[in-house]
Amino acid sequence: MEQFSSKLLEDAIQSFQGLPGVGRKTATRMVLHLLKLDKSQVENFAQSLHKLRLEIQYCTQCHNLSDQPICNICADQKRDATIICVVEDVRDVMAIENTQQYKGVYHVLGGKISPMDGIGPTDLFIETLVDKVNGGIIKEVILAMSTTMEGETTSFYLYKKIQDASITISTIARGISFGDELEYADELTLGRSILQRTPYENTLAKQ
Amino acid sequence: MEQFSSKLLEDAIQSFQGLPGVGRKTATRMVLHLLKLDKSQVENFAQSLHKLRLEIQYCTQCHNLSDQPICNICADQKRDATIICVVEDVRDVMAIENTQQYKGVYHVLGGKISPMDGIGPTDLFIETLVDKVNGGIIKEVILAMSTTMEGETTSFYLYKKIQDASITISTIARGISFGDELEYADELTLGRSILQRTPYENTLAKQ
Repeated sequence: MEQFSSKLLEDAIQSFQGLPGVGRKTATRMVLHLLKLDKSQVENFAQSLHKLRLEIQYCTQCHNLSDQPICNICADQKRDATIICVVEDVRDVMAIENTQQYKGVYHVLGGKISPMDGIGPTDLFIETLVDKVNGGIIKEVILAMSTTMEGETTSFYLYKKIQDASITISTIARGISFGDELEYADELTLGRSILQRTPYENTLAKQ
Repeated sequence: MEQFSSKLLEDAIQSFQGLPGVGRKTATRMVLHLLKLDKSQVENFAQSLHKLRLEIQYCTQCHNLSDQPICNICADQKRDATIICVVEDVRDVMAIENTQQYKGVYHVLGGKISPMDGIGPTDLFIETLVDKVNGGIIKEVILAMSTTMEGETTSFYLYKKIQDASITISTIARGISFGDELEYADELTLGRSILQRTPYENTLAKQ
């Protein structure tokens, strides 16, 4: 194993090496890059990590990452609190927010049911979702899980849990992505997209 | 541009995004990974960066990164201070140390002469090398630059600067790497490796 004679350097490299997808060579490159920066820039870097871990919270309503007890989205009066989009993790919130198409609120499960990884329903924020639904204010729950086996399982489990409430339960549309060629689409997706065909819209004109 | 609603998260992502080879998605993945770690681990990470930038020094003798004014290698009495291996940067020191074949000391230039990037001889630690050579203790200087145009130029420049001193000036052997197939080797390397052929040694038995 390559070792630097400097313990300071070694410590910093070890820190970066723990990150996902970062090996020793990449970690070394990152640390040597930091040494070329101003002291204040590296200080800001260290400070941002320090503050991140100490001060960040999870929104008590939707379990999204937040700086306050209630996240910006839940606190926003302009958003429709009667529609909840259920997602697996905070990255999904970011992805959907990025589309600027959704004006409801979220519920972050914190993962998906995956017996292979030892994650069962009790490891996720499912009870709080059921409580919200039973609270009577919610009109629609959108199940926006990933289209994997675990995602589908989680959707089905949630559906079973909340199906008796008099609300709309929907799921995000599955189909051929924009820009995809039909011949490369898998059969399941293509089959579904034919069955669930929608009235023609000129999508080019919309862009 | 995707934006998290949390400023703490956003700040941390921005910090990582400045690193070489790290885009926004990778930075996000890294930061979300840090959130899963213990507070103490993230604290250590922040601390290692903080200390790195504030406390690290460059060895006053060889310009290698060091925790003290004189680095471990230069301070080591068991190393032969009469042989200097000249390298471009600190990563090369690490690479050569890793072979455990070299017992001399180093001289880190801090780069290579590269007019395209605006780096001339005065931007590198060349004068201190010349001073060492003129000091009279040095017996051999090994020029261990990379085999690029800039590396060769730097080697030649250094050679011109120190050729009048009564010392041995050598360069690391060029040739076909172990494990390489001849048909894929470039003509220059292959040509040189034939001209500079060495007595047969059974390298397999050595491994």
